[in-house]
Amino acid sequence: MKIVRFAHNSAEHWGLVEDDKVRALPDGPFGEITPAPDALPLDAVKLLAPVKPGKLVCVGLNYVLHARESGLPLPDEPMLFMCSPQAIIGPGEAIVLNSHEQRVEFEAELAIVIKKRARNVPAAEAASVVLGYTCANDVSNRDLQLKDKQFTRAKSFDTYKPVGPWIETELTPDVLSIRLLQNGVIRQDSTTADMIFPTSFIIEFVSSIMTLEAGDVIITGTPSGVGPMKSGDRIEVEIAGIGKLENTVQ
Amino acid sequence: MKIVRFAHNSAEHWGLVEDDKVRALPDGPFGEITPAPDALPLDAVKLLAPVKPGKLVCVGLNYVLHARESGLPLPDEPMLFMCSPQAIIGPGEAIVLNSHEQRVEFEAELAIVIKKRARNVPAAEAASVVLGYTCANDVSNRDLQLKDKQFTRAKSFDTYKPVGPWIETELTPDVLSIRLLQNGVIRQDSTTADMIFPTSFIIEFVSSIMTLEAGDVIITGTPSGVGPMKSGDRIEVEIAGIGKLENTVQ
Repeated sequence: MKIVRFAHNSAEHWGLVEDDKVRALPDGPFGEITPAPDALPLDAVKLLAPVKPGKLVCVGLNYVLHARESGLPLPDEPMLFMCSPQAIIGPGEAIVLNSHEQRVEFEAELAIVIKKRARNVPAAEAASVVLGYTCANDVSNRDLQLKDKQFTRAKSFDTYKPVGPWIETELTPDVLSIRLLQNGVIRQDSTTADMIFPTSFIIEFVSSIMTLEAGDVIITGTPSGVGPMKSGDRIEVEIAGIGKLENTVQ
Repeated sequence: MKIVRFAHNSAEHWGLVEDDKVRALPDGPFGEITPAPDALPLDAVKLLAPVKPGKLVCVGLNYVLHARESGLPLPDEPMLFMCSPQAIIGPGEAIVLNSHEQRVEFEAELAIVIKKRARNVPAAEAASVVLGYTCANDVSNRDLQLKDKQFTRAKSFDTYKPVGPWIETELTPDVLSIRLLQNGVIRQDSTTADMIFPTSFIIEFVSSIMTLEAGDVIITGTPSGVGPMKSGDRIEVEIAGIGKLENTVQ
Protein backbone atom coordinates (compact mmCIF):
# COMPACT_ATOMS: atom_id res chain seq x y z
CA MET A 1 0.00 0.00 0.00
CA LYS A 2 0.98 3.60 -0.60
CA ILE A 3 0.09 5.80 2.39
CA VAL A 4 -0.06 9.55 1.85
CA ARG A 5 -1.16 12.72 3.52
CA PHE A 6 -2.95 15.14 1.25
CA ALA A 7 -4.72 18.47 1.25
CA HIS A 8 -8.18 18.75 -0.29
CA ASN A 9 -10.81 21.42 0.22
CA SER A 10 -8.61 23.20 2.76
CA ALA A 11 -8.35 20.14 5.03
CA GLU A 12 -5.55 17.62 5.54
CA HIS A 13 -6.15 13.89 5.39
CA TRP A 14 -4.36 10.61 5.55
CA GLY A 15 -4.95 8.63 2.37
CA LEU A 16 -4.34 5.47 0.41
CA VAL A 17 -3.14 5.73 -3.20
CA GLU A 18 -4.46 3.16 -5.68
CA ASP A 19 -3.28 3.73 -9.25
CA ASP A 20 -4.32 7.31 -10.10
CA LYS A 21 -6.81 7.64 -7.25
CA VAL A 22 -6.62 8.38 -3.54
CA ARG A 23 -9.08 7.41 -0.81
CA ALA A 24 -9.03 9.07 2.61
CA LEU A 25 -8.12 7.10 5.72
CA PRO A 26 -10.27 8.73 8.42
CA ASP A 27 -8.69 6.55 11.14
CA GLY A 28 -5.14 7.16 9.95
CA PRO A 29 -2.56 4.57 8.94
CA PHE A 30 -1.36 3.24 12.29
CA GLY A 31 -4.18 0.84 13.09
CA GLU A 32 -6.45 -1.09 10.76
CA ILE A 33 -6.48 0.47 7.30
CA THR A 34 -10.10 1.33 6.49
CA PRO A 35 -10.32 3.64 3.47
CA ALA A 36 -13.36 5.81 2.89
CA PRO A 37 -15.56 4.58 0.03
CA ASP A 38 -15.13 7.63 -2.21
CA ALA A 39 -11.98 7.96 -4.32
CA LEU A 40 -10.54 11.24 -5.58
CA PRO A 41 -8.33 11.60 -8.64
CA LEU A 42 -4.73 11.78 -7.41
CA ASP A 43 -4.11 14.87 -9.52
CA ALA A 44 -7.00 16.69 -7.81
CA VAL A 45 -5.27 16.71 -4.42
CA LYS A 46 -2.02 18.18 -3.15
CA LEU A 47 0.28 15.58 -1.65
CA LEU A 48 1.87 16.62 1.66
CA ALA A 49 4.77 15.09 3.52
CA PRO A 50 3.41 11.57 4.20
CA VAL A 51 4.15 11.76 7.92
CA LYS A 52 4.45 14.38 10.67
CA PRO A 53 6.85 12.68 13.03
CA GLY A 54 7.26 13.34 16.70
CA LYS A 55 10.93 12.36 16.50
CA LEU A 56 13.21 12.58 13.49
CA VAL A 57 16.18 10.32 14.25
CA CYS A 58 19.09 10.30 11.83
CA VAL A 59 21.93 7.87 11.19
CA GLY A 60 25.22 9.29 9.92
CA LEU A 61 27.91 7.62 7.84
CA ASN A 62 25.94 4.47 7.09
CA TYR A 63 27.31 3.72 3.61
CA VAL A 64 30.92 2.69 3.22
CA LEU A 65 31.69 4.91 0.23
CA HIS A 66 30.11 8.00 1.81
CA ALA A 67 32.11 7.50 5.00
CA ARG A 68 35.23 7.35 2.83
CA GLU A 69 34.34 10.49 0.82
CA SER A 70 33.79 12.27 4.15
CA GLY A 71 37.30 11.24 5.24
CA LEU A 72 35.93 9.61 8.38
CA PRO A 73 36.56 6.14 9.82
CA LEU A 74 33.78 3.56 9.49
CA PRO A 75 31.63 3.55 12.62
CA ASP A 76 31.43 0.37 14.70
CA GLU A 77 27.94 1.35 15.86
CA PRO A 78 25.32 3.53 14.13
CA MET A 79 26.10 7.22 14.62
CA LEU A 80 22.89 8.86 15.80
CA PHE A 81 21.72 12.43 15.90
CA MET A 82 18.34 14.10 15.77
CA CYS A 83 16.85 16.86 13.64
CA SER A 84 13.88 19.16 13.96
CA PRO A 85 10.69 17.47 12.73
CA GLN A 86 9.55 20.95 11.68
CA ALA A 87 12.22 20.77 8.95
CA ILE A 88 10.07 18.28 7.07
CA ILE A 89 8.44 19.30 3.79
CA GLY A 90 6.54 17.25 1.24
CA PRO A 91 6.92 16.45 -2.45
CA GLY A 92 6.98 19.49 -4.69
CA GLU A 93 7.79 21.91 -1.88
CA ALA A 94 10.82 24.18 -2.01
CA ILE A 95 14.02 23.66 -0.05
CA VAL A 96 14.82 27.21 1.11
CA LEU A 97 18.59 27.67 1.48
CA ASN A 98 19.52 29.31 4.78
CA SER A 99 22.50 30.93 3.08
CA HIS A 100 23.68 31.49 -0.46
CA GLU A 101 27.32 31.70 0.59
CA GLN A 102 27.51 28.47 2.58
CA ARG A 103 27.70 25.02 0.98
CA VAL A 104 24.34 23.25 1.30
CA GLU A 105 24.34 19.67 0.04
CA PHE A 106 21.78 17.01 -0.91
CA GLU A 107 21.80 13.54 0.64
CA ALA A 108 19.41 10.86 -0.69
CA GLU A 109 18.23 8.59 2.13
CA LEU A 110 15.81 5.76 2.82
CA ALA A 111 13.39 6.76 5.60
CA ILE A 112 11.77 4.28 8.00
CA VAL A 113 8.33 5.21 9.36
CA ILE A 114 7.46 3.60 12.70
CA LYS A 115 3.99 2.04 13.13
CA LYS A 116 3.60 1.74 16.89
CA ARG A 117 5.30 2.34 20.20
CA ALA A 118 8.50 0.29 20.25
CA ARG A 119 11.22 -0.33 22.83
CA ASN A 120 13.99 -2.95 22.72
CA VAL A 121 12.92 -4.51 19.43
CA PRO A 122 15.26 -7.30 18.24
CA ALA A 123 16.36 -6.96 14.62
CA ALA A 124 14.51 -10.15 13.75
CA GLU A 125 11.24 -8.49 14.81
CA ALA A 126 11.98 -5.02 13.45
CA ALA A 127 9.54 -5.33 10.54
CA SER A 128 6.67 -5.65 13.02
CA VAL A 129 7.10 -2.04 14.18
CA VAL A 130 7.54 -0.52 10.70
CA LEU A 131 4.64 1.11 8.88
CA GLY A 132 6.71 1.45 5.73
CA TYR A 133 9.45 3.30 3.91
CA THR A 134 9.73 6.53 1.98
CA CYS A 135 12.35 8.70 0.29
CA ALA A 136 14.12 11.51 2.11
CA ASN A 137 16.66 14.20 1.34
CA ASP A 138 18.85 14.94 4.37
CA VAL A 139 19.75 18.47 3.26
CA SER A 140 22.90 19.55 5.10
CA ASN A 141 24.68 22.84 5.49
CA ARG A 142 28.18 21.40 5.24
CA ASP A 143 29.93 24.55 6.48
CA LEU A 144 27.90 24.61 9.68
CA GLN A 145 28.17 20.84 10.09
CA LEU A 146 31.96 21.05 10.04
CA LYS A 147 31.98 24.09 12.33
CA ASP A 148 29.51 22.76 14.90
CA LYS A 149 30.65 19.13 15.04
CA GLN A 150 27.13 18.41 16.37
CA PHE A 151 25.05 17.83 13.21
CA THR A 152 21.70 19.11 14.48
CA ARG A 153 21.87 22.76 13.40
CA ALA A 154 23.31 22.10 9.95
CA LYS A 155 20.49 19.70 9.14
CA SER A 156 17.53 21.23 11.01
CA PHE A 157 16.72 24.41 9.12
CA ASP A 158 13.05 24.56 8.21
CA THR A 159 12.53 22.87 4.77
CA TYR A 160 15.78 20.84 5.05
CA LYS A 161 14.04 17.46 5.31
CA PRO A 162 11.94 16.69 2.22
CA VAL A 163 10.20 13.29 2.55
CA GLY A 164 7.76 11.44 0.33
CA PRO A 165 5.97 11.03 -1.93
CA TRP A 166 4.29 8.24 0.06
CA ILE A 167 4.97 5.52 2.58
CA GLU A 168 5.28 2.16 0.82
CA THR A 169 4.17 -0.53 3.26
CA GLU A 170 5.05 -3.60 1.21
CA LEU A 171 8.76 -3.40 0.76
CA THR A 172 11.83 -5.33 1.78
CA PRO A 173 14.39 -2.58 2.36
CA ASP A 174 17.61 -4.54 2.13
CA VAL A 175 18.54 -4.35 -1.58
CA LEU A 176 16.98 -1.28 -3.15
CA SER A 177 18.47 0.98 -5.78
CA ILE A 178 18.79 4.51 -4.37
CA ARG A 179 19.59 7.44 -6.63
CA LEU A 180 19.62 11.21 -6.58
CA LEU A 181 19.31 13.38 -9.67
CA GLN A 182 20.18 17.07 -9.78
CA ASN A 183 18.54 18.79 -12.74
CA GLY A 184 18.23 15.38 -14.36
CA VAL A 185 21.89 14.41 -13.86
CA ILE A 186 22.57 11.36 -11.68
CA ARG A 187 24.66 12.40 -8.65
CA GLN A 188 24.12 9.50 -6.26
CA ASP A 189 23.61 5.95 -7.51
CA SER A 190 23.89 3.16 -4.99
CA THR A 191 21.96 0.40 -3.27
CA THR A 192 20.75 -0.02 0.28
CA ALA A 193 22.73 -3.28 0.27
CA ASP A 194 25.80 -1.08 0.83
CA MET A 195 24.54 0.09 4.22
CA ILE A 196 26.96 -0.66 7.01
CA PHE A 197 24.02 -1.22 9.38
CA PRO A 198 20.80 -2.50 7.76
CA THR A 199 17.44 -1.03 8.72
CA SER A 200 16.53 -3.96 11.00
CA PHE A 201 19.68 -3.43 13.07
CA ILE A 202 19.12 0.33 13.15
CA ILE A 203 15.66 -0.25 14.64
CA GLU A 204 17.12 -2.65 17.23
CA PHE A 205 19.82 -0.12 18.10
CA VAL A 206 17.65 2.99 18.30
CA SER A 207 14.89 1.23 20.22
CA SER A 208 17.46 -0.04 22.74
CA ILE A 209 18.05 3.62 23.64
CA MET A 210 14.77 5.45 23.22
CA THR A 211 11.11 4.55 23.01
CA LEU A 212 9.89 4.98 19.45
CA GLU A 213 6.34 6.19 18.84
CA ALA A 214 3.93 5.74 15.93
CA GLY A 215 4.92 8.17 13.18
CA ASP A 216 8.52 8.58 14.28
CA VAL A 217 10.92 8.65 11.36
CA ILE A 218 14.46 7.27 11.15
CA ILE A 219 16.54 8.31 8.16
CA THR A 220 19.25 5.81 7.47
CA GLY A 221 22.24 7.59 6.01
CA THR A 222 23.28 8.58 2.51
CA PRO A 223 25.45 6.85 -0.10
CA SER A 224 28.42 8.55 -1.75
CA GLY A 225 28.09 11.33 -4.28
CA VAL A 226 26.74 14.15 -2.13
CA GLY A 227 27.18 17.60 -3.57
CA PRO A 228 26.12 21.22 -3.34
CA MET A 229 22.79 22.65 -4.45
CA LYS A 230 21.98 26.13 -5.72
CA SER A 231 18.83 28.14 -6.11
CA GLY A 232 16.72 26.90 -9.02
CA ASP A 233 17.93 23.30 -8.82
CA ARG A 234 15.48 20.43 -9.22
CA ILE A 235 16.37 17.51 -6.94
CA GLU A 236 14.90 14.02 -7.30
CA VAL A 237 15.41 11.16 -4.83
CA GLU A 238 14.45 7.81 -6.37
CA ILE A 239 14.26 4.57 -4.44
CA ALA A 240 13.23 1.36 -6.21
CA GLY A 241 9.89 0.06 -4.98
CA ILE A 242 8.92 3.43 -3.51
CA GLY A 243 9.05 6.09 -6.19
CA LYS A 244 10.42 9.56 -6.69
CA LEU A 245 10.54 12.55 -4.35
CA GLU A 246 11.01 15.79 -6.27
CA ASN A 247 11.78 19.21 -4.79
CA THR A 248 13.12 22.51 -5.99
CA VAL A 249 15.71 24.73 -4.34
CA GLN A 250 15.17 28.39 -3.49
CA MET B 1 1.86 30.83 38.21
CA LYS B 2 3.04 27.27 38.68
CA ILE B 3 1.84 25.04 35.83
CA VAL B 4 1.89 21.28 36.37
CA ARG B 5 0.70 18.08 34.85
CA PHE B 6 -0.72 15.61 37.30
CA ALA B 7 -2.36 12.21 37.53
CA HIS B 8 -5.57 11.81 39.49
CA ASN B 9 -8.18 9.06 39.30
CA SER B 10 -6.25 7.35 36.48
CA ALA B 11 -6.38 10.42 34.24
CA GLU B 12 -3.73 13.02 33.37
CA HIS B 13 -4.45 16.73 33.60
CA TRP B 14 -2.79 20.08 33.22
CA GLY B 15 -3.06 22.03 36.46
CA LEU B 16 -2.32 25.21 38.34
CA VAL B 17 -0.68 25.01 41.77
CA GLU B 18 -1.76 27.54 44.40
CA ASP B 19 -0.13 27.02 47.79
CA ASP B 20 -0.92 23.41 48.75
CA LYS B 21 -3.74 22.99 46.24
CA VAL B 22 -3.99 22.25 42.54
CA ARG B 23 -6.78 23.12 40.13
CA ALA B 24 -7.13 21.45 36.74
CA LEU B 25 -6.67 23.45 33.53
CA PRO B 26 -9.08 21.76 31.13
CA ASP B 27 -7.93 23.96 28.24
CA GLY B 28 -4.24 23.49 28.96
CA PRO B 29 -1.65 26.16 29.66
CA PHE B 30 -0.91 27.52 26.19
CA GLY B 31 -3.90 29.82 25.75
CA GLU B 32 -5.91 31.69 28.35
CA ILE B 33 -5.45 30.14 31.78
CA THR B 34 -8.92 29.15 33.05
CA PRO B 35 -8.69 26.84 36.07
CA ALA B 36 -11.57 24.56 37.02
CA PRO B 37 -13.44 25.73 40.12
CA ASP B 38 -12.63 22.70 42.29
CA ALA B 39 -9.24 22.48 43.98
CA LEU B 40 -7.53 19.25 45.04
CA PRO B 41 -4.94 18.98 47.80
CA LEU B 42 -1.53 18.91 46.14
CA ASP B 43 -0.54 15.84 48.15
CA ALA B 44 -3.54 13.93 46.81
CA VAL B 45 -2.26 13.97 43.23
CA LYS B 46 0.86 12.61 41.56
CA LEU B 47 2.88 15.28 39.78
CA LEU B 48 4.07 14.29 36.31
CA ALA B 49 6.66 15.92 34.09
CA PRO B 50 5.11 19.36 33.60
CA VAL B 51 5.38 19.20 29.82
CA LYS B 52 5.43 16.59 27.04
CA PRO B 53 7.47 18.38 24.41
CA GLY B 54 7.43 17.73 20.71
CA LYS B 55 11.07 18.82 20.46
CA LEU B 56 13.71 18.69 23.17
CA VAL B 57 16.48 21.05 22.05
CA CYS B 58 19.67 21.17 24.09
CA VAL B 59 22.49 23.69 24.37
CA GLY B 60 25.96 22.40 25.20
CA LEU B 61 28.82 24.16 26.95
CA ASN B 62 26.86 27.24 27.95
CA TYR B 63 28.62 28.03 31.24
CA VAL B 64 32.22 29.20 31.18
CA LEU B 65 33.42 26.99 34.05
CA HIS B 66 31.77 23.85 32.66
CA ALA B 67 33.33 24.42 29.25
CA ARG B 68 36.70 24.70 31.02
CA GLU B 69 36.18 21.53 33.11
CA SER B 70 35.29 19.71 29.85
CA GLY B 71 38.59 20.87 28.36
CA LEU B 72 36.78 22.44 25.41
CA PRO B 73 37.11 25.92 23.93
CA LEU B 74 34.30 28.40 24.59
CA PRO B 75 31.78 28.33 21.75
CA ASP B 76 31.21 31.50 19.71
CA GLU B 77 27.64 30.40 19.02
CA PRO B 78 25.33 28.14 21.05
CA MET B 79 26.17 24.47 20.46
CA LEU B 80 22.89 22.73 19.67
CA PHE B 81 21.85 19.12 19.72
CA MET B 82 18.56 17.34 20.27
CA CYS B 83 17.45 14.53 22.56
CA SER B 84 14.54 12.13 22.60
CA PRO B 85 11.47 13.72 24.22
CA GLN B 86 10.59 10.20 25.40
CA ALA B 87 13.57 10.47 27.78
CA ILE B 88 11.58 12.90 29.91
CA ILE B 89 10.42 11.83 33.36
CA GLY B 90 8.78 13.80 36.14
CA PRO B 91 9.59 14.63 39.75
CA GLY B 92 10.03 11.59 41.97
CA GLU B 93 10.55 9.20 39.07
CA ALA B 94 13.66 7.05 38.81
CA ILE B 95 16.57 7.67 36.47
CA VAL B 96 17.35 4.14 35.21
CA LEU B 97 21.04 3.81 34.37
CA ASN B 98 21.62 2.19 30.99
CA SER B 99 24.85 0.69 32.30
CA HIS B 100 26.48 0.18 35.66
CA GLU B 101 29.96 0.10 34.16
CA GLN B 102 29.79 3.31 32.18
CA ARG B 103 30.07 6.77 33.73
CA VAL B 104 26.63 8.42 33.86
CA GLU B 105 26.66 12.01 35.11
CA PHE B 106 24.16 14.57 36.38
CA GLU B 107 23.86 18.04 34.85
CA ALA B 108 21.57 20.64 36.46
CA GLU B 109 19.97 22.88 33.82
CA LEU B 110 17.39 25.60 33.44
CA ALA B 111 14.68 24.53 30.98
CA ILE B 112 12.68 26.94 28.82
CA VAL B 113 9.13 25.90 27.89
CA ILE B 114 7.80 27.48 24.69
CA LYS B 115 4.26 28.91 24.69
CA LYS B 116 3.40 29.20 21.01
CA ARG B 117 4.70 28.65 17.52
CA ALA B 118 7.78 30.80 17.07
CA ARG B 119 10.15 31.52 14.17
CA ASN B 120 12.82 34.23 13.94
CA VAL B 121 12.11 35.74 17.35
CA PRO B 122 14.48 38.61 18.24
CA ALA B 123 16.03 38.31 21.70
CA ALA B 124 14.20 41.45 22.80
CA GLU B 125 10.88 39.67 22.15
CA ALA B 126 11.90 36.23 23.40
CA ALA B 127 9.83 36.46 26.59
CA SER B 128 6.66 36.69 24.49
CA VAL B 129 7.07 33.09 23.27
CA VAL B 130 7.98 31.59 26.67
CA LEU B 131 5.39 29.88 28.84
CA GLY B 132 7.85 29.60 31.71
CA TYR B 133 10.86 27.85 33.16
CA THR B 134 11.49 24.63 35.03
CA CYS B 135 14.37 22.56 36.39
CA ALA B 136 16.00 19.80 34.36
CA ASN B 137 18.71 17.20 34.79
CA ASP B 138 20.52 16.53 31.49
CA VAL B 139 21.67 13.03 32.48
CA SER B 140 24.60 12.05 30.27
CA ASN B 141 26.44 8.82 29.66
CA ARG B 142 29.89 10.39 29.46
CA ASP B 143 31.58 7.30 28.01
CA LEU B 144 29.16 7.17 25.09
CA GLN B 145 29.25 10.95 24.66
CA LEU B 146 33.02 10.87 24.23
CA LYS B 147 32.86 7.83 21.96
CA ASP B 148 30.05 9.05 19.71
CA LYS B 149 31.03 12.74 19.43
CA GLN B 150 27.34 13.32 18.57
CA PHE B 151 25.66 13.83 21.97
CA THR B 152 22.22 12.43 21.12
CA ARG B 153 22.65 8.80 22.16
CA ALA B 154 24.48 9.51 25.41
CA LYS B 155 21.71 11.82 26.56
CA SER B 156 18.60 10.20 25.08
CA PHE B 157 18.14 7.00 27.04
CA ASP B 158 14.61 6.72 28.40
CA THR B 159 14.48 8.40 31.87
CA TYR B 160 17.59 10.54 31.20
CA LYS B 161 15.72 13.85 31.16
CA PRO B 162 14.00 14.56 34.50
CA VAL B 163 12.11 17.89 34.40
CA GLY B 164 9.91 19.66 36.90
CA PRO B 165 8.40 20.00 39.36
CA TRP B 166 6.39 22.75 37.60
CA ILE B 167 6.65 25.49 35.03
CA GLU B 168 7.07 28.85 36.74
CA THR B 169 5.57 31.49 34.47
CA GLU B 170 6.59 34.60 36.40
CA LEU B 171 10.34 34.53 36.38
CA THR B 172 13.19 36.57 35.00
CA PRO B 173 15.75 33.90 34.09
CA ASP B 174 18.91 35.96 33.94
CA VAL B 175 20.28 35.83 37.50
CA LEU B 176 19.05 32.70 39.24
CA SER B 177 20.92 30.50 41.67
CA ILE B 178 21.17 26.98 40.21
CA ARG B 179 22.36 24.07 42.37
CA LEU B 180 22.51 20.31 42.29
CA LEU B 181 22.66 18.13 45.38
CA GLN B 182 23.65 14.47 45.36
CA ASN B 183 22.46 12.70 48.51
CA GLY B 184 22.24 16.10 50.17
CA VAL B 185 25.76 17.19 49.21
CA ILE B 186 26.07 20.26 46.99
CA ARG B 187 27.81 19.29 43.71
CA GLN B 188 26.88 22.16 41.42
CA ASP B 189 26.41 25.70 42.72
CA SER B 190 26.26 28.49 40.20
CA THR B 191 24.05 31.18 38.74
CA THR B 192 22.40 31.56 35.35
CA ALA B 193 24.26 34.89 35.16
CA ASP B 194 27.29 32.79 34.20
CA MET B 195 25.67 31.57 31.00
CA ILE B 196 27.71 32.40 27.92
CA PHE B 197 24.46 32.85 25.93
CA PRO B 198 21.44 34.02 27.95
CA THR B 199 18.04 32.44 27.41
CA SER B 200 16.75 35.32 25.26
CA PHE B 201 19.64 34.90 22.83
CA ILE B 202 19.20 31.14 22.80
CA ILE B 203 15.57 31.60 21.75
CA GLU B 204 16.61 34.01 19.00
CA PHE B 205 19.28 31.59 17.81
CA VAL B 206 17.19 28.41 17.87
CA SER B 207 14.15 30.07 16.32
CA SER B 208 16.34 31.42 13.49
CA ILE B 209 16.94 27.79 12.51
CA MET B 210 13.81 25.83 13.33
CA THR B 211 10.18 26.62 13.99
CA LEU B 212 9.42 26.16 17.68
CA GLU B 213 6.02 24.83 18.72
CA ALA B 214 3.97 25.20 21.92
CA GLY B 215 5.37 22.83 24.51
CA ASP B 216 8.82 22.52 22.97
CA VAL B 217 11.58 22.54 25.57
CA ILE B 218 15.06 24.04 25.35
CA ILE B 219 17.54 23.08 28.05
CA THR B 220 20.22 25.68 28.39
CA GLY B 221 23.44 23.98 29.48
CA THR B 222 24.94 23.04 32.82
CA PRO B 223 27.34 24.85 35.15
CA SER B 224 30.55 23.26 36.41
CA GLY B 225 30.64 20.47 38.96
CA VAL B 226 29.13 17.61 36.97
CA GLY B 227 29.87 14.17 38.35
CA PRO B 228 28.90 10.51 38.23
CA MET B 229 25.78 8.97 39.75
CA LYS B 230 25.24 5.49 41.10
CA SER B 231 22.25 3.37 41.85
CA GLY B 232 20.46 4.54 45.01
CA ASP B 233 21.52 8.18 44.68
CA ARG B 234 19.04 10.95 45.39
CA ILE B 235 19.55 13.90 43.04
CA GLU B 236 18.01 17.34 43.57
CA VAL B 237 18.12 20.21 41.08
CA GLU B 238 17.23 23.53 42.73
CA ILE B 239 16.70 26.77 40.84
CA ALA B 240 15.80 29.93 42.74
CA GLY B 241 12.29 31.12 41.94
CA ILE B 242 11.26 27.72 40.59
CA GLY B 243 11.80 25.07 43.24
CA LYS B 244 13.35 21.66 43.56
CA LEU B 245 13.28 18.66 41.21
CA GLU B 246 14.09 15.43 43.03
CA ASN B 247 14.78 12.04 41.46
CA THR B 248 16.37 8.79 42.48
CA VAL B 249 18.81 6.65 40.51
CA GLN B 250 18.29 2.96 39.73
